[in-house]
Amino acid sequence: MRILGIDPGIAIVGFGFIDKQGHRLVPVQYGSIQTEAHTADAQRLKQIYEAAVQLIDKYKPDAVAIEKLFFNRNVTTALTVGQARGVLMLAAEQKSLPIGEYTPLQVKQAIVGYGKAEKKQVQEMVRMFLHLTAVPKPDDVADALAVAICHAHSSALQQKLNGAYKR
Amino acid sequence: MRILGIDPGIAIVGFGFIDKQGHRLVPVQYGSIQTEAHTADAQRLKQIYEAAVQLIDKYKPDAVAIEKLFFNRNVTTALTVGQARGVLMLAAEQKSLPIGEYTPLQVKQAIVGYGKAEKKQVQEMVRMFLHLTAVPKPDDVADALAVAICHAHSSALQQKLNGAYKR
Repeated sequence: MRILGIDPGIAIVGFGFIDKQGHRLVPVQYGSIQTEAHTADAQRLKQIYEAAVQLIDKYKPDAVAIEKLFFNRNVTTALTVGQARGVLMLAAEQKSLPIGEYTPLQVKQAIVGYGKAEKKQVQEMVRMFLHLTAVPKPDDVADALAVAICHAHSSALQQKLNGAYKR
Repeated sequence: MRILGIDPGIAIVGFGFIDKQGHRLVPVQYGSIQTEAHTADAQRLKQIYEAAVQLIDKYKPDAVAIEKLFFNRNVTTALTVGQARGVLMLAAEQKSLPIGEYTPLQVKQAIVGYGKAEKKQVQEMVRMFLHLTAVPKPDDVADALAVAICHAHSSALQQKLNGAYKR
């Protein structure tokens, strides 16, 4: 099963494709979609949407996992990130891909085992899970891989539960 | 010039097409895109996007005006409305339509003349401007027409200013 993890944003969208092969997680491709400041929001949204469509067409994931963000502070940021999230979810839905949404808390719990883990701990665990020599940069890429791994763990658990129910 | 006004949302998107013929404003078509609760967000976003694309293809506006929302209260609402706003802006940008964004304050000032106008006053002015027999329902439709009228007034002013600069 191939999972596309996404960390949404308007300036930087982190993405990471991983393959789940039994218990192993194998990184396929990861990076970021970046848009220029001083560009109209609508144009940036179109660039993000088109890049996402291209990536999905090329790497053909079976599922998409996307960060579910909570903002305590800045409502304008929530609106802007929401816009980017909207076009990314549209790109996934147009390919009929199942979409998993995970809060930062859920991601930390899935990766490190507890919800108050430091960002650096999460990133180091991502590096280890995927047998990478270094933590991917910028942070948004590591975050995207983290949410993909979170989805892999959740869907493995889900399968076990389904199996249990079937007995 | 034909303007599409949009009041974005995830459950209801208000829309209104108006034609600006000299000093006259003529309503062309207005209504709402509605999505069902208990439907996945991604599916609702796709429905909104597809409906918007169809409307733009059918009524061929020259410009789009969309409400720029500020939320003091609910950040989750901002994120959700942002997602809907994102796919609507994408639909407009894909047709290379210029997009005007207006705050509720700007809309009220353009329609009633001052920013603290009541919702009912704005709706009544919308009805009068467009020579309608009744205020369109739900409120989202009247709001969409209001932002379209706001854009018509702003672009008229802009043209005058441009004219002045040219001399």
